[in-house]
Amino acid sequence: IIQIDFSALFWNGLKWIFFSALLGIIVGSASALFLEALNWATQYREQHLWIIGLLPFAGLTIGLAYHYWGKEVVKGNNLLIEELQSPKNIIPLIMAPLIFAATIITHLFGGSAGREGTAVQIGGAFADQFTKIFKLEPSDRKIILICGISAGFSSVFGTPLAGAVFGLEVFVIGSLFYSAILPSFITAIIADYICKTWGVGHTHYSIAFVPDMHILNLFCSLLAGIIFGLAARSFSVLNHSLSSIFGKVKYPPLRPVIGGFILITIIYLSATTRYIGLGIPVISESFTTQEPYYTFAIKLFLTSLTLSAGFKGGEVTPLFFIGATLGSFLSLFLPLPVGLLAGMGFVAVFSGAANTPLACIFMGMELFGVSSGIYIALACTTAYLFSGHTGIYRSQAIGNPKYRLLKKHSFLR
Amino acid sequence: IIQIDFSALFWNGLKWIFFSALLGIIVGSASALFLEALNWATQYREQHLWIIGLLPFAGLTIGLAYHYWGKEVVKGNNLLIEELQSPKNIIPLIMAPLIFAATIITHLFGGSAGREGTAVQIGGAFADQFTKIFKLEPSDRKIILICGISAGFSSVFGTPLAGAVFGLEVFVIGSLFYSAILPSFITAIIADYICKTWGVGHTHYSIAFVPDMHILNLFCSLLAGIIFGLAARSFSVLNHSLSSIFGKVKYPPLRPVIGGFILITIIYLSATTRYIGLGIPVISESFTTQEPYYTFAIKLFLTSLTLSAGFKGGEVTPLFFIGATLGSFLSLFLPLPVGLLAGMGFVAVFSGAANTPLACIFMGMELFGVSSGIYIALACTTAYLFSGHTGIYRSQAIGNPKYRLLKKHSFLR
Repeated sequence: IIQIDFSALFWNGLKWIFFSALLGIIVGSASALFLEALNWATQYREQHLWIIGLLPFAGLTIGLAYHYWGKEVVKGNNLLIEELQSPKNIIPLIMAPLIFAATIITHLFGGSAGREGTAVQIGGAFADQFTKIFKLEPSDRKIILICGISAGFSSVFGTPLAGAVFGLEVFVIGSLFYSAILPSFITAIIADYICKTWGVGHTHYSIAFVPDMHILNLFCSLLAGIIFGLAARSFSVLNHSLSSIFGKVKYPPLRPVIGGFILITIIYLSATTRYIGLGIPVISESFTTQEPYYTFAIKLFLTSLTLSAGFKGGEVTPLFFIGATLGSFLSLFLPLPVGLLAGMGFVAVFSGAANTPLACIFMGMELFGVSSGIYIALACTTAYLFSGHTGIYRSQAIGNPKYRLLKKHSFLR
Repeated sequence: IIQIDFSALFWNGLKWIFFSALLGIIVGSASALFLEALNWATQYREQHLWIIGLLPFAGLTIGLAYHYWGKEVVKGNNLLIEELQSPKNIIPLIMAPLIFAATIITHLFGGSAGREGTAVQIGGAFADQFTKIFKLEPSDRKIILICGISAGFSSVFGTPLAGAVFGLEVFVIGSLFYSAILPSFITAIIADYICKTWGVGHTHYSIAFVPDMHILNLFCSLLAGIIFGLAARSFSVLNHSLSSIFGKVKYPPLRPVIGGFILITIIYLSATTRYIGLGIPVISESFTTQEPYYTFAIKLFLTSLTLSAGFKGGEVTPLFFIGATLGSFLSLFLPLPVGLLAGMGFVAVFSGAANTPLACIFMGMELFGVSSGIYIALACTTAYLFSGHTGIYRSQAIGNPKYRLLKKHSFLR
């Protein structure tokens, strides 16, 4: 029986409670401020639609800001993932205000983007200042970075358990980093608590009816999961293709200007703001009303365009939108309730695109309750398996390939 | 971007749906039969208490059965874990009927034991017959064994998500086996569905009141988690010590006879059947009534004695008992509601003893709902960290040591 040095464990525990509490308070407060600012930006845009006409100029501002001050941090989430895999440099604190401002500008002027990337980068940037201030060793640095990511995710969505597991799961595909499990949970829980204490709420979604599981429903869930996985894959592929097309514009600040012109043309022609910004109203609607086939596709295209042109924000809320509206549309064919399919898609497309199936199952349970848990789990794991190895985070390492097994089955290839 | 062979993935998926469905039906049905038999045995014992006097003879029967027919399978869960780590031989089907009968006998005559070990071994034994019949390759064998374990756990407790994650998490400490994620979930969900379809229900527990999280509650949760972790550690240590004491009796069938005599002496002197069998009534009671300090300790001792003497059954329901009654007792000191502490202990002691924190968080959410999720998560991860590396399954490999980080902090040691 291996001996434990309980006093060491205890003091180490106290140290991490201190770090976690401090980081949780900072990141939770930053998320609260961010969510409030995002709310204001969304409302202002919806009440002053002419502002969308300035999208190219907004893009130029973001482009110039990153060109002059943000070259080191322009990789965003991928920079965090790379530092977790092979530590190089402390993440500059400027990552936090840059991504904060750029995201608010993107949303204010009508880009289609999310918010988790912003929260995660704010969390990561603040966390890495601990490395400098408290002179953390590499192993501790890894833990504090994970805590920052968890805290950002947790507080921006109001889902502490999903946030904690997301931080542990995101940087290596097919692997979960147990060594940070307690600090990650503590930081995520504190950050969420602090964000709520500031009076910032989160949208509530609910699945009206969950049928009993039986064999037909099981098959439908798996089929839906495959479709969600392919949607996730399409999003990642389109993102990467558009990025390389925009990459041909050699002067980076010009990219969001061009992207902005394309976006306002599309928004003007479609004559609706349904598909820009976060899209929370449409997500909510999709839980009760069957969406047409094009809702998810338009959002998928506009978000890929917005982000690969160099506007800022996250991918996750658009992925919720894509998944929920795709699921809602699938209720046309699949004999499952529209709300359940929307909820399954909400987390499953994200599961496939971020390669974080367990975080997504937790998120589904935190958002929609336990009763839909088995449907959520089937959809998230299937989508994870059918989305390929290149998700939205290009820097993810592949710890356990999803299809290692297949390689040996030559008869199946 | 890595290419995916979707048709291979699809056909492989269909193959696993077939295997999972078949295995889920078999294991779910076996669990239903087992739970019914266990119910009958418990009721019969409670109505005919004289039968406890025959415990030494029951022990002799079990001892002889394993001595003559079960030498290969006497390691039980550890055999499954070893085969998952380094495959040697197909698990003999006799494991299933032997553990089934021995567990029923143990409960009928008044031993203190659980049921997960039995369900998991039935699941694993049936699963490995697939290896033989369908000539599975080593990588597929690993998946089907995990599916068997998941199915057994899922159906015996009525918690499909916890069952699925338990199978993925149990054989290596600090690691989760993503390669089996979809088959494991499908099998666990089908097994649970089949068991419920046979009309077999599970006990419902409920946490009456969950307070809002704040800093005091956070500290109390962590403190409770540490205590749950130490209780888990005590259980494992006592189990291993008593096992080595009984190991000095050279003729194995004699061990449960001696253990049986000690058990009936204790049961006779204590003049109660509260601490034997599964102990479900006491578990339920602990959610509403504060238990005295000795409840958990007596159960801890009686279960260690029962199992290390060679009686059969699982450890998990006794661990639920120990955790729930310990948590219930802690409400004397900690300002958290009795039901919440009982629920936290229920899963957290198990988390520490089995080294499966994520499965336990899922279990907590499936049993008690989402609202207690953050408390459950804090307790389960803390207990996991404070329980040491030698849990109830001695064969678990250590994938990621829990305190690797500490080694480098000489100032903390």
